[in-house]
Amino acid sequence: MTSSIKKIGVFTSGGDSPGMNAAIRSVVRTCAYMNVECVGIYRGYEGMMEGDFKPMDARSVNNIINKGGTILKSARCTEFRTPEGRKIAHDKLLEAGIDAFVVIGGDGSFTGAMIFNQEYDFPVIGIPGTIDNDIFGTTYTLGFDTALNTVVEAIDKIRDTASSHNRLFFVEVMGRDVGHIALNAGVGAGAEEILIPEENLGLDRLLESLKRSKKSGKSSSIVIVAEGDKTGKNVFELKEYVEEHLPIYDVRVSVLGHMQRGGSPSCYDRVLASRMGVKAVEALLEGKTNLMVGIQDNRLILTPINKAIKGHTKIDKELMRVSEIMTT
Amino acid sequence: MTSSIKKIGVFTSGGDSPGMNAAIRSVVRTCAYMNVECVGIYRGYEGMMEGDFKPMDARSVNNIINKGGTILKSARCTEFRTPEGRKIAHDKLLEAGIDAFVVIGGDGSFTGAMIFNQEYDFPVIGIPGTIDNDIFGTTYTLGFDTALNTVVEAIDKIRDTASSHNRLFFVEVMGRDVGHIALNAGVGAGAEEILIPEENLGLDRLLESLKRSKKSGKSSSIVIVAEGDKTGKNVFELKEYVEEHLPIYDVRVSVLGHMQRGGSPSCYDRVLASRMGVKAVEALLEGKTNLMVGIQDNRLILTPINKAIKGHTKIDKELMRVSEIMTT
Amino acid sequence: MTSSIKKIGVFTSGGDSPGMNAAIRSVVRTCAYMNVECVGIYRGYEGMMEGDFKPMDARSVNNIINKGGTILKSARCTEFRTPEGRKIAHDKLLEAGIDAFVVIGGDGSFTGAMIFNQEYDFPVIGIPGTIDNDIFGTTYTLGFDTALNTVVEAIDKIRDTASSHNRLFFVEVMGRDVGHIALNAGVGAGAEEILIPEENLGLDRLLESLKRSKKSGKSSSIVIVAEGDKTGKNVFELKEYVEEHLPIYDVRVSVLGHMQRGGSPSCYDRVLASRMGVKAVEALLEGKTNLMVGIQDNRLILTPINKAIKGHTKIDKELMRVSEIMTT
Amino acid sequence: MTSSIKKIGVFTSGGDSPGMNAAIRSVVRTCAYMNVECVGIYRGYEGMMEGDFKPMDARSVNNIINKGGTILKSARCTEFRTPEGRKIAHDKLLEAGIDAFVVIGGDGSFTGAMIFNQEYDFPVIGIPGTIDNDIFGTTYTLGFDTALNTVVEAIDKIRDTASSHNRLFFVEVMGRDVGHIALNAGVGAGAEEILIPEENLGLDRLLESLKRSKKSGKSSSIVIVAEGDKTGKNVFELKEYVEEHLPIYDVRVSVLGHMQRGGSPSCYDRVLASRMGVKAVEALLEGKTNLMVGIQDNRLILTPINKAIKGHTKIDKELMRVSEIMTT
Repeated sequence: MTSSIKKIGVFTSGGDSPGMNAAIRSVVRTCAYMNVECVGIYRGYEGMMEGDFKPMDARSVNNIINKGGTILKSARCTEFRTPEGRKIAHDKLLEAGIDAFVVIGGDGSFTGAMIFNQEYDFPVIGIPGTIDNDIFGTTYTLGFDTALNTVVEAIDKIRDTASSHNRLFFVEVMGRDVGHIALNAGVGAGAEEILIPEENLGLDRLLESLKRSKKSGKSSSIVIVAEGDKTGKNVFELKEYVEEHLPIYDVRVSVLGHMQRGGSPSCYDRVLASRMGVKAVEALLEGKTNLMVGIQDNRLILTPINKAIKGHTKIDKELMRVSEIMTT
Repeated sequence: MTSSIKKIGVFTSGGDSPGMNAAIRSVVRTCAYMNVECVGIYRGYEGMMEGDFKPMDARSVNNIINKGGTILKSARCTEFRTPEGRKIAHDKLLEAGIDAFVVIGGDGSFTGAMIFNQEYDFPVIGIPGTIDNDIFGTTYTLGFDTALNTVVEAIDKIRDTASSHNRLFFVEVMGRDVGHIALNAGVGAGAEEILIPEENLGLDRLLESLKRSKKSGKSSSIVIVAEGDKTGKNVFELKEYVEEHLPIYDVRVSVLGHMQRGGSPSCYDRVLASRMGVKAVEALLEGKTNLMVGIQDNRLILTPINKAIKGHTKIDKELMRVSEIMTT
Repeated sequence: MTSSIKKIGVFTSGGDSPGMNAAIRSVVRTCAYMNVECVGIYRGYEGMMEGDFKPMDARSVNNIINKGGTILKSARCTEFRTPEGRKIAHDKLLEAGIDAFVVIGGDGSFTGAMIFNQEYDFPVIGIPGTIDNDIFGTTYTLGFDTALNTVVEAIDKIRDTASSHNRLFFVEVMGRDVGHIALNAGVGAGAEEILIPEENLGLDRLLESLKRSKKSGKSSSIVIVAEGDKTGKNVFELKEYVEEHLPIYDVRVSVLGHMQRGGSPSCYDRVLASRMGVKAVEALLEGKTNLMVGIQDNRLILTPINKAIKGHTKIDKELMRVSEIMTT
Repeated sequence: MTSSIKKIGVFTSGGDSPGMNAAIRSVVRTCAYMNVECVGIYRGYEGMMEGDFKPMDARSVNNIINKGGTILKSARCTEFRTPEGRKIAHDKLLEAGIDAFVVIGGDGSFTGAMIFNQEYDFPVIGIPGTIDNDIFGTTYTLGFDTALNTVVEAIDKIRDTASSHNRLFFVEVMGRDVGHIALNAGVGAGAEEILIPEENLGLDRLLESLKRSKKSGKSSSIVIVAEGDKTGKNVFELKEYVEEHLPIYDVRVSVLGHMQRGGSPSCYDRVLASRMGVKAVEALLEGKTNLMVGIQDNRLILTPINKAIKGHTKIDKELMRVSEIMTT
């Protein structure tokens, strides 16, 4: 393969997610395999602007496939949103002889890459790394599968104590704008009700459901609430609301928080990351740019970054129905 | 919905896999939701022939979604392979007023169901439950995802000790006829080489790879071997072969064994089981029969059982290539 | 052994903890082994007053040793604190022919048992089941070891994301009155600072420590805070305080909550529960009463319940020193 | 503290065990805290003889407390058993200015240290790191607790499939000379029978027990076998023996193998390692030598290495009795 690209940068950006290290490893090793140099860029766009670079060979990514977080660190960077910031970053990349980059991150990180590509005709490929699974153009984002397992394992523990005391728990999971984690983990954890940002089920319906649940002989209940739940109440307000209207229930709240972002990636996320890293480097070497690698029907596909950014993932209506049937 | 089906039987058959309980729960609760009676049949076809039945309502499947194994037990039954055996089973089903059944299992279990359907025009729907992922008509079988996580977690532990002692490990995983577990878990665990039933990479190639691995500075190596590896050598013979030809290596063997079939199902397997159970009951109530529920491109599909049985899953060439690149 | 005790009741009371099921199993099986009848009492003193009893044989406790929570359920019961309540309970026990009971729980549950014993000369033995490890007369309570593992696993995940973003996390763990979980899990998780109810390290010291931590090159920090931390500030107030005084830090909060009470018990807790159950039944059959089973120097000992209640566990000064040295 | 010791070496030796990294970290950080230099010695005595040293400061052991294996690698070294080998090692230590060392390992590693101390009057302190718990002078060795959890988690998974198929499993665990893992994990996993090196229960007794188990209505059974089981039969021979004499059983074998040595250490092992590391460095700085750090009754103690080596741990008779009662 004769490509004009001789040195590829790789970095992680935005919120971290399990599988990012596996993706870095894959990009680095694919470069080694293809005899292209690879450079790690620390702390995303921030490190890019500071020239915080480190050459990476195949051995430099030993034993990271199973580690959560990102060895290249991540950051959110406001300065890169300005033309001046991007100019500085471009200079640093040129200086280091970097011809192209692979960005592992979410929406915001892709937007930056796309603008940078347009301004400097700099080849960029994105790999979707976020636990939220909210990127258009891929059925799964890196870290989503791991986060779901983390959530259901935590709720399995909570259920132990909930059913020992016949209690009702509200468990808040991540998902400010999208309910994918809440819906999938809710079904997986056998939740009695799932509140997500996409749908307002209404508080009356929640009360009805809880009443029915009690009547049907259930001794305990778990309600999953996405951060951005559309009822407009946060999880503590929900507790108060329910205790007021259904005093029969002894309600507890658990906010799972940042542990959802960490942990050793699941096998699925490790494999997906490995596949995406190969695809990303290959795309760059084939002269492609401004694309995001995604997976659909278990095959890798490429989607223009602007589509990935503008598109919206939809909540799965079939799964919502499954959820409802399961709480019979 | 006016369906002639009033009472549905459900059972698990063949080797057990994580997610079977979640599928049982889903079938039972969907029946309850649809106001159809549901009967659990113990120990697969064996229990069917003995009339080992138990009515199941929505509460009878509380707190099983996260349990490995199968509360209905499973068995392999040779007598059901005879017309006489199936006659007995049919009588028992009629006696109990069971109109249709959902069978959760693999190839062998589906073959029995198909013949039974043909002989007695008895409505049957299959749900693919096996860790091997070797069923045509579905991208994933129930339990595959969980088994992969079990395997990579075990190999992560083995790698700790392998890299502490600069050792080579051969790790045998399940897969007598298919290498899906070996290939996926091998990539997920960062294995240096993966030996599967579908491809004979040749022992020379293995030695070459191990020599190269040593030279490239790797301090330890993990080789994944599927039970049915095509080199024709089992994992202990491989150890001897390598020690003879590459005395530099201190080789150890680990056979992961039956723990791969157990454990709490992953979120993915729980959700998949929940979805498949709903689909299976709905299909029966819509008058469908002799079909297997599968998942493709994250959507549920129905495949004629005879196709599911005869079809072959193929090893993923792209993933084999990823595996090769990753071991650079 | 000729004992006047023919039928023993067993129940769990107060907050549940991992290992309670293993202790129930042990009491039930020891009774079976000793040819004494055993009766499960549901929902602690509440169920005792309602006569919510169930005979239990050796097989009734199959497959529960590894389950979190308690199959006998638990509850806090205010009515049992009154003489009238205890009278009702005593009548119910007599009616059912129960001669003695084993109570698995914490301080409050033991107090009830002690008074009951004094009033009715009813033989009682306690098994310390609480994650807080705050019972005098035993080095470990049932569930403490499991809770520590749950906490460090959660913090390991949080650290992934903390070190990817160079952040400071305040993690709140259980322990309203005692800091055993905080101190042990803090050392185990490699926390930079640990705030416990027993000691007021002072907020200035915390700021000093965090400044020093930054200077020494640490890229991220975890501070463990027990619920009842003596600084008098809750975890969210601490966040605000630190952000105000050390704006260099990007602070996040995580409240681990009720998942700490659940989960499959560790091997240690399962073995301890099995041992304590045997000891408790043996003590009753030997005519002993009003004692709590404890473990000290890996040997089982018996402590008068009133000592267990009045005594105080102390925070381990040596471990506090270890904690300080480790954060160098 | 005015000590003549200015530079301390630390290394791991023999079979690795979870918690070794936590112990290394503790030694390194305690040195930093005490203003003493610390040097990591790679691959045990082998690396000592090669002068494979690396200065370690407090930051060099970041993020290893939760990692299995040992970052300093381990090895068994025959050359150090010769006076010539030890001479070379001593020269290398002097050359590097190392005044004393902390050895983390088992019996064999301690013997080497003791002889070295006698020959060269070189200060040495041992930390017991082995999963086997077979060192006299400490109730727990580093890694034992973690290994027990690894074993019971694996058996929990095996039980899923065992009870789904009404099968009998023989599970082999580590312990060539001692049955501590087998006995504790056997009780923790609810095994029906436990075969250990210390006691020959006799094959007849095993058959009796299995028959009784079947009769009592148990649907599946797990028998734990330590590697060095005294019946003289290995686990595969046991399978054949039982299948021949009790054809009613469908027997399967699982050899857990090296995964027992790896994995993230439990909280207990992390805390124990942290405490022992502090104690070891303090002992050296106080002028002590030829001692092993141990834990007894939750307090750290020091035992002369020659006693630690010659002493024998005993199998816990009380726990054997608990085991028997539990299988009622």
